[in-house]
Amino acid sequence: MGGGYGWHCLYAAEHGARKVIGTDISQKMLKVAKEKNCFPDIIEYRQQAIEDIQFANASFDLVVSSLALHYVADFAQICHKIYACLTEKGQFIFSIEHPVFTAHGSQDWCCDSSGAKLHWPVDNYFNESARQTEFLGHKVTKYHKTLTTYLTSLLTAGFSIERLIEPQPADYLLDKIDGMRDELRRPMMLLVVAEKA
Amino acid sequence: MGGGYGWHCLYAAEHGARKVIGTDISQKMLKVAKEKNCFPDIIEYRQQAIEDIQFANASFDLVVSSLALHYVADFAQICHKIYACLTEKGQFIFSIEHPVFTAHGSQDWCCDSSGAKLHWPVDNYFNESARQTEFLGHKVTKYHKTLTTYLTSLLTAGFSIERLIEPQPADYLLDKIDGMRDELRRPMMLLVVAEKA
Repeated sequence: MGGGYGWHCLYAAEHGARKVIGTDISQKMLKVAKEKNCFPDIIEYRQQAIEDIQFANASFDLVVSSLALHYVADFAQICHKIYACLTEKGQFIFSIEHPVFTAHGSQDWCCDSSGAKLHWPVDNYFNESARQTEFLGHKVTKYHKTLTTYLTSLLTAGFSIERLIEPQPADYLLDKIDGMRDELRRPMMLLVVAEKA
Repeated sequence: MGGGYGWHCLYAAEHGARKVIGTDISQKMLKVAKEKNCFPDIIEYRQQAIEDIQFANASFDLVVSSLALHYVADFAQICHKIYACLTEKGQFIFSIEHPVFTAHGSQDWCCDSSGAKLHWPVDNYFNESARQTEFLGHKVTKYHKTLTTYLTSLLTAGFSIERLIEPQPADYLLDKIDGMRDELRRPMMLLVVAEKA
């Protein structure tokens, strides 16, 4: 869901998936995904907003979403839909921008007058609503949700939480990429593995 | 565990618990707890650090800890011990200071020159180690751990996550207590219900 250029679809096909459906709201991204599709018998792309997904019950073993669900206002509704379309023991694996990252809204460090990063600001944490930010020069609307809302939505839909990870940069990257050490100062992403009980 | 004056022990006894064991490291607090113990046949108090608990396997239906586990360095070890001493479907319910609250170390708002609260600072999030802070005028050592560490320790020990809540103040308190509205700006506590699968 929100699969963009289709890298996860290709990965799944390369690793033995019999059938993959990739969805994204962007026609532009899907165009590229379709051009890169070297498994046309396995991968099918559909233009669809995450909010509009509608699949037959128990039709998927796995639903994957990478850094897209923080653009969706109603996470609980998505959870119910995904739970229904998963087979028994099927998994819903997703990453999102961490609530610590989305709460304040600025998505930028608090710096001193010389530009040195002092700390990461958190504010309005329990105010679950739209946040206007910039992404690659475009204005985008994200929806900040608390950790409580993410996990409660999953549990209420019937999922069990199998893993929860706040990813950190690998050691070998810390001094290779500018600013990478700052990624140890605050969590940017949250990765969850949920399973249909 | 870390039950202080024993309020949770009393609550359990008042609500039908047949047997309650309350532990705390502080002799002073246990002295008060014992004086308040109006269920001497049901509640027994023991002076014991959380790290040192040692109970027979499958001997408790419920283990409760309120705002004490952020003083413990090794949460994973505690999880294993508690899992062993719980009966099947037994629950481990605990609250801790939220990782967002413990990460920076200062445990104070970032304010402007007039003292107005600008935002809550997060820093050193992935640096899991001791934090020296003040509590009621005393220097205390807390151990910051990431959300990942808390949940992974529980899941690795065999627990399922039944609920996770970042508590918010009740509406009627918001304008009654000074500063209470600021509690909506950042999560201070984390409440988890884990169950022995």
